[in-house]
Amino acid sequence: MFKSTEKIETMIEAMPYIRKFQKKVVVIKYGGHAMINEELRNKFAQDMVFLQFFGLRPVIVHGGGPEITEMLKKIGKKSEFIEGLRITDKETAEIAQMVLVGKINSGITSLITVNGGKAVGLSGKDSNLISAKKLLKEIEIDGQTKIIDIGLVGEVLDINVHLINSILDGGYTPVISPIGMGENGETYNINADTVAGKIAAALQAEKLIMLTDVNGIYEKQGDSKSFISVLSFDKALKMIAEKKIDGGMIPKVEACIDALKNMTKSAHIINGKIPHSILTEIFTDKGLGTMVVI
Amino acid sequence: MFKSTEKIETMIEAMPYIRKFQKKVVVIKYGGHAMINEELRNKFAQDMVFLQFFGLRPVIVHGGGPEITEMLKKIGKKSEFIEGLRITDKETAEIAQMVLVGKINSGITSLITVNGGKAVGLSGKDSNLISAKKLLKEIEIDGQTKIIDIGLVGEVLDINVHLINSILDGGYTPVISPIGMGENGETYNINADTVAGKIAAALQAEKLIMLTDVNGIYEKQGDSKSFISVLSFDKALKMIAEKKIDGGMIPKVEACIDALKNMTKSAHIINGKIPHSILTEIFTDKGLGTMVVI
Amino acid sequence: MFKSTEKIETMIEAMPYIRKFQKKVVVIKYGGHAMINEELRNKFAQDMVFLQFFGLRPVIVHGGGPEITEMLKKIGKKSEFIEGLRITDKETAEIAQMVLVGKINSGITSLITVNGGKAVGLSGKDSNLISAKKLLKEIEIDGQTKIIDIGLVGEVLDINVHLINSILDGGYTPVISPIGMGENGETYNINADTVAGKIAAALQAEKLIMLTDVNGIYEKQGDSKSFISVLSFDKALKMIAEKKIDGGMIPKVEACIDALKNMTKSAHIINGKIPHSILTEIFTDKGLGTMVVI
Amino acid sequence: MFKSTEKIETMIEAMPYIRKFQKKVVVIKYGGHAMINEELRNKFAQDMVFLQFFGLRPVIVHGGGPEITEMLKKIGKKSEFIEGLRITDKETAEIAQMVLVGKINSGITSLITVNGGKAVGLSGKDSNLISAKKLLKEIEIDGQTKIIDIGLVGEVLDINVHLINSILDGGYTPVISPIGMGENGETYNINADTVAGKIAAALQAEKLIMLTDVNGIYEKQGDSKSFISVLSFDKALKMIAEKKIDGGMIPKVEACIDALKNMTKSAHIINGKIPHSILTEIFTDKGLGTMVVI
Amino acid sequence: MFKSTEKIETMIEAMPYIRKFQKKVVVIKYGGHAMINEELRNKFAQDMVFLQFFGLRPVIVHGGGPEITEMLKKIGKKSEFIEGLRITDKETAEIAQMVLVGKINSGITSLITVNGGKAVGLSGKDSNLISAKKLLKEIEIDGQTKIIDIGLVGEVLDINVHLINSILDGGYTPVISPIGMGENGETYNINADTVAGKIAAALQAEKLIMLTDVNGIYEKQGDSKSFISVLSFDKALKMIAEKKIDGGMIPKVEACIDALKNMTKSAHIINGKIPHSILTEIFTDKGLGTMVVI
Amino acid sequence: MFKSTEKIETMIEAMPYIRKFQKKVVVIKYGGHAMINEELRNKFAQDMVFLQFFGLRPVIVHGGGPEITEMLKKIGKKSEFIEGLRITDKETAEIAQMVLVGKINSGITSLITVNGGKAVGLSGKDSNLISAKKLLKEIEIDGQTKIIDIGLVGEVLDINVHLINSILDGGYTPVISPIGMGENGETYNINADTVAGKIAAALQAEKLIMLTDVNGIYEKQGDSKSFISVLSFDKALKMIAEKKIDGGMIPKVEACIDALKNMTKSAHIINGKIPHSILTEIFTDKGLGTMVVI
Repeated sequence: MFKSTEKIETMIEAMPYIRKFQKKVVVIKYGGHAMINEELRNKFAQDMVFLQFFGLRPVIVHGGGPEITEMLKKIGKKSEFIEGLRITDKETAEIAQMVLVGKINSGITSLITVNGGKAVGLSGKDSNLISAKKLLKEIEIDGQTKIIDIGLVGEVLDINVHLINSILDGGYTPVISPIGMGENGETYNINADTVAGKIAAALQAEKLIMLTDVNGIYEKQGDSKSFISVLSFDKALKMIAEKKIDGGMIPKVEACIDALKNMTKSAHIINGKIPHSILTEIFTDKGLGTMVVI
Repeated sequence: MFKSTEKIETMIEAMPYIRKFQKKVVVIKYGGHAMINEELRNKFAQDMVFLQFFGLRPVIVHGGGPEITEMLKKIGKKSEFIEGLRITDKETAEIAQMVLVGKINSGITSLITVNGGKAVGLSGKDSNLISAKKLLKEIEIDGQTKIIDIGLVGEVLDINVHLINSILDGGYTPVISPIGMGENGETYNINADTVAGKIAAALQAEKLIMLTDVNGIYEKQGDSKSFISVLSFDKALKMIAEKKIDGGMIPKVEACIDALKNMTKSAHIINGKIPHSILTEIFTDKGLGTMVVI
Repeated sequence: MFKSTEKIETMIEAMPYIRKFQKKVVVIKYGGHAMINEELRNKFAQDMVFLQFFGLRPVIVHGGGPEITEMLKKIGKKSEFIEGLRITDKETAEIAQMVLVGKINSGITSLITVNGGKAVGLSGKDSNLISAKKLLKEIEIDGQTKIIDIGLVGEVLDINVHLINSILDGGYTPVISPIGMGENGETYNINADTVAGKIAAALQAEKLIMLTDVNGIYEKQGDSKSFISVLSFDKALKMIAEKKIDGGMIPKVEACIDALKNMTKSAHIINGKIPHSILTEIFTDKGLGTMVVI
Repeated sequence: MFKSTEKIETMIEAMPYIRKFQKKVVVIKYGGHAMINEELRNKFAQDMVFLQFFGLRPVIVHGGGPEITEMLKKIGKKSEFIEGLRITDKETAEIAQMVLVGKINSGITSLITVNGGKAVGLSGKDSNLISAKKLLKEIEIDGQTKIIDIGLVGEVLDINVHLINSILDGGYTPVISPIGMGENGETYNINADTVAGKIAAALQAEKLIMLTDVNGIYEKQGDSKSFISVLSFDKALKMIAEKKIDGGMIPKVEACIDALKNMTKSAHIINGKIPHSILTEIFTDKGLGTMVVI
Repeated sequence: MFKSTEKIETMIEAMPYIRKFQKKVVVIKYGGHAMINEELRNKFAQDMVFLQFFGLRPVIVHGGGPEITEMLKKIGKKSEFIEGLRITDKETAEIAQMVLVGKINSGITSLITVNGGKAVGLSGKDSNLISAKKLLKEIEIDGQTKIIDIGLVGEVLDINVHLINSILDGGYTPVISPIGMGENGETYNINADTVAGKIAAALQAEKLIMLTDVNGIYEKQGDSKSFISVLSFDKALKMIAEKKIDGGMIPKVEACIDALKNMTKSAHIINGKIPHSILTEIFTDKGLGTMVVI
Repeated sequence: MFKSTEKIETMIEAMPYIRKFQKKVVVIKYGGHAMINEELRNKFAQDMVFLQFFGLRPVIVHGGGPEITEMLKKIGKKSEFIEGLRITDKETAEIAQMVLVGKINSGITSLITVNGGKAVGLSGKDSNLISAKKLLKEIEIDGQTKIIDIGLVGEVLDINVHLINSILDGGYTPVISPIGMGENGETYNINADTVAGKIAAALQAEKLIMLTDVNGIYEKQGDSKSFISVLSFDKALKMIAEKKIDGGMIPKVEACIDALKNMTKSAHIINGKIPHSILTEIFTDKGLGTMVVI
């Protein structure tokens, strides 16, 4: 219980900020260092319980690349990538699903449960939660655009909003693995950032928060003074074209744009290495990281 | 908004204690110094907003003796008391009602409103909220018990629980003036402590909290070492008989006993001069003041 | 119970008229002689119980000028008026509130209760029921318009419709004192007619009924043949300009216009001295008094 | 609309009696002169609209013997009776159903509709409203008890309470024809008094009212001074045994006893020839006719 | 219970078709041979129970011409017709109502009940279910159009949709007799096909199905090769003008057109002599009979 | 759609059996051959969609021993067993969870989805769905009972009934992996049969059905004539003691007994190799396999 009046004062000050976000949906892409470091994992779980307890409606989408790679190694299978996308044969897709749904997702729900919250793990294959089709990847080789087959990598067609809301209405936080379901039950591996953006769009979320391992986006990489707090669409697209934004940051920025175009109120790229970064983003005036805007 | 992670930690720690009391009814007798001193009044209002915001169901009963006396003086009317009870003619009862309902009660609801809460003032005469009849006061004169007429002073017959719950269900905190309504619409002045006890009993409240200007009850008055944290029924009655509990403390202790006999879970006499004393009582392990128990 | 079949026939005849108004909101400005004369007060209370019982949703706004004046006199304070508006210092505002909320309002709710109805008294300061700001009064002196300070006299900014509906939905009739609440909790005295108009507008009432001590509006005052049954906006404004409508009748007519402009279906100025004048207005073909129309 | 204040006073007086019976089920056996005389029929319909409008839940069971006889005569079929029970072959049962459901019942619902009420006609064969089996009639011939076959005359096995309540909840008054349904869909003719008693019992009605053509029960038939206002079970059974109660009055008294044994609060035998006799019974202190009590 | 896996397979195959029609309103005009032949009647009742059980909302309107004629004959009254419409005096109207409501309607509800379903019979006179006025019939005599009086034959003014939905929501299938109610309670005989069309229109039904004794509509009567599966409005009107559609088929086609103009999705004329023709129409790809389209 | 009337007849016959089980909970232990063979898997999914479609509330608990063994082998880890229980170190527990939740469970929900149903996969670690503690295994060595440590193998402490019902109420079929959650978030491997029994008990299921690869229980193994259709508690316990029931059948029979003791209505051990064995058990008079009874 409270040991000092000072703490009571803290609670009293917090009420207006909490009130502002009650009943609002916040979609969180969870991944990177915040998912590996044990202390950060615990703080993340506390943050989720906090949001749920004070009446927000958090929805978690998690990634898991490194652990999939590790598992594939364990069974003696090598991972190949083209432009950051894993070439995914049937066995790889199956292992990916197993690691994402059976290990990472379960780890998150049980950590939230241990911290006093209520969470339900969902695969994108539960009741067509994430309907998907094969992603046709265009790459440029020798100045020519070619479509190449990278296997069971999917793109999102539709989100089963009823299922997510049904879980939220029951008082549980949905934790979603980025597995897509094809028309005939095929398993598709999908980029978790992209899935988070699609879900925020489908739910018309109040906020989309992308946890990363950096502070946000910089005008010039390596120059901390060039940090961008507020990034417009146009500028973001230009920076991608100019390769100032590259690698894994591209799908994150694209997911933000996707969500914002579909009625999500705000989208944020923040540093998951900072403890309680999500609560800080939501409940402080200054916020954290780079906010993408229309 | 939060300025430091430390404050976020405070919030996280608070969740289990808040959870424990959500949806519980807490009846608070508000009076004394906490109602006169401006800083304390503001802290009291903050506490009420806090309880309401975090899902408890506070019900406030207020007193107001000194202000009634002052108003009577203003219009040139002298107050007479017999054994602590004001002799109440029709004009006095009318002035009492005016001061209680029209000044003190409105002052409380508006202060709660200014602090961001939602409150509705109720007179005991609204829809028979407090049904009452004339109190027949026994006093001892020369060793003989006599019943004397002290005018429009009432005792509680019944509480309109539907009205209180209807206000609570609408999301508002009821603030109740201790005015009783006779069968033919007469106005009765009733001791606010007694009313608080009856309302806690009628609502089968989780807690009854009596705000006073002292820390609680002492074995020997003036000896701070003789403070009683937990006081049993039997002992309380014995102390009243032995005049170790006397004056205005008698109806407070009796109200606690009354409530406890009728399914109220716990009853507390605490010092309203301590800032946030109510939150401290509810949300700290040690609590505050004297707890009366069965 | 019924003693004759004739009375049963009366009931049967009444059904269609009652059906027509079920669930409809009727805002009533209560004041004047009907609030002072004991018999009329009882009949008024019966009328309110009648409306509630047969399924209408009455909302009462009361005045109280004379009693405030009387109370001020009692404590030795003189009342000053400019153009019919009381110059209101802090003490005056406090006394006004005390008399309105603590005496008159409580008197109305208890009389309704004694007559078998259910009523809840509300101050405009309960949960921002009536948000207000300082009224800036323009007067003309020597042909020049000047703004003068008349103290804590307010004008309505907003009405808390949720609170009124919450009380109505609980099955209680709200009785409202014309006290406004400033941004920082200030107490404003507001003209009761104006408040009634604003509340009818906010609730989009079926009817606004203003009780007065005269039959309605006359073309030529003192000439009973010049009585106006139906008064148009334009004509009303012209009559005010020509001072054919003056004094306390001006805010009444203005309140009617205000309500009608905001979806109130009809507005009536009727004579409260006639017993059951409200029921007569609502439930007879001819109605009573002057009806203001768009 | 009201033409005089006197009528408003009548309405005001009526409120407490109406309040007492709101939401209560009243089962009415309708038949005899009140069903034939046009003026009485209209008054009966008005009474039903009255009960419905003021929030009671009337349920009507009607009879129809004379009209069945008339119809049978029209098609050249003679009616035979044994101990007051019609010998009922298949054609007779069909004609009875046609007259009861297709003529009398429809006549009642349309008359209630014309008077502004809402009614739905039900046959006992709709969804097993009245489940029945063949009545085995014992008669005494030459001092010996014999069971004789009187054809398709039924006794009630069960009432579909869900259907009646479903109609009432929709805001409609059920009007029920005393036709029973056998296990294989057979049509049974059943005494309407008996059906009314069973339905009152099944619904645990507040009141069962049997309309007849006489004032009630007399100690000595023809001696108006011997009228019995309150009749006990025991006495009723004794009077039947002594043949002081005989003929068509027997099933009426038995139906009252049946209902009272099954939680119906009171049972009344009243004179349907008196206009508004039902409202008089319910809403006057004295009531009407003979009340049967446990 | 199931005796073979094959039957389980049938059930599994049926699920998608059933799902498609769940909660949809299907209005069925029931008459002709399907109402006379005992085996067909039983199959019809089974079909209705089927629709209800699997979550559709069937509404039945029945005819009954031949049985009315037969009854009139029984009481020695001759039927006269002008252009297919029965000249209907008061006695005839009364007999028609008795036969329709008291015999045919009750026969249908009891047969559905025996088969395990739940049905409630309704007359058009129950609570203004079918409001009607006198039909003014134009006929051509010697090249001149004359309006003739054919008595109590009505046309539909309005349908009480609330009553039908209230019965459906209670879980019962409404069975409706084509009796209309005039402003003053008059009984009007109305063509059942017309009533079915009006009810489908008022309910904005998914389907209107007219049961007849023929397979549907033919280009050339008697030439089975000229069968028309899909018939457009324009063509239908032209065929009526050219007398290729005539007699009792005219009101059927007109009812289909009427319903389709008012948001009914599809209208069908099918052969009731084929067992389970209704289920076949709804649940097979090919359907049955002639479908009328916009 | 239906191609023949015969199929319509099948549907009509099925209605009463379906009606009997609507809204009833059926817990199914899914495992063995029925989970490996592709055709059987499809038929199982169809059965689940069937149950859901026709209004039952199926809950699936799946096993997965062979696939866990296979996966362990893949990563080069050997499985050790003591008395049929796998010795489970942390890595084994993690692999087991991954295979159960991430592969098998997802395979089931997606197959149900492909077949038109709605399913949600749940791990026992989602919101304490299956609270567990370490199982202390007693074994007999040289005639002495010793408790041995077999690692992270758990026994069930509690089931989160709210979560299961919340999923069912949302219209989804829960598919549950037999993973238990320790007080501090440990992962426990639990026998799926045991979990199914506990869940049936917690839900007070209508039926518990254990899918196996044999027809049921035999008096004498290998003697098909000694098949036991109905097996009593006492006999079952005796047969276990006499080792007539042994190996993997022991936990199945014990789970049945456990469920029956806790208000499950019936428990069945059936052969999952028979297509549609579950529907056959539920919807045929004879049922399938061995029914265990109290």
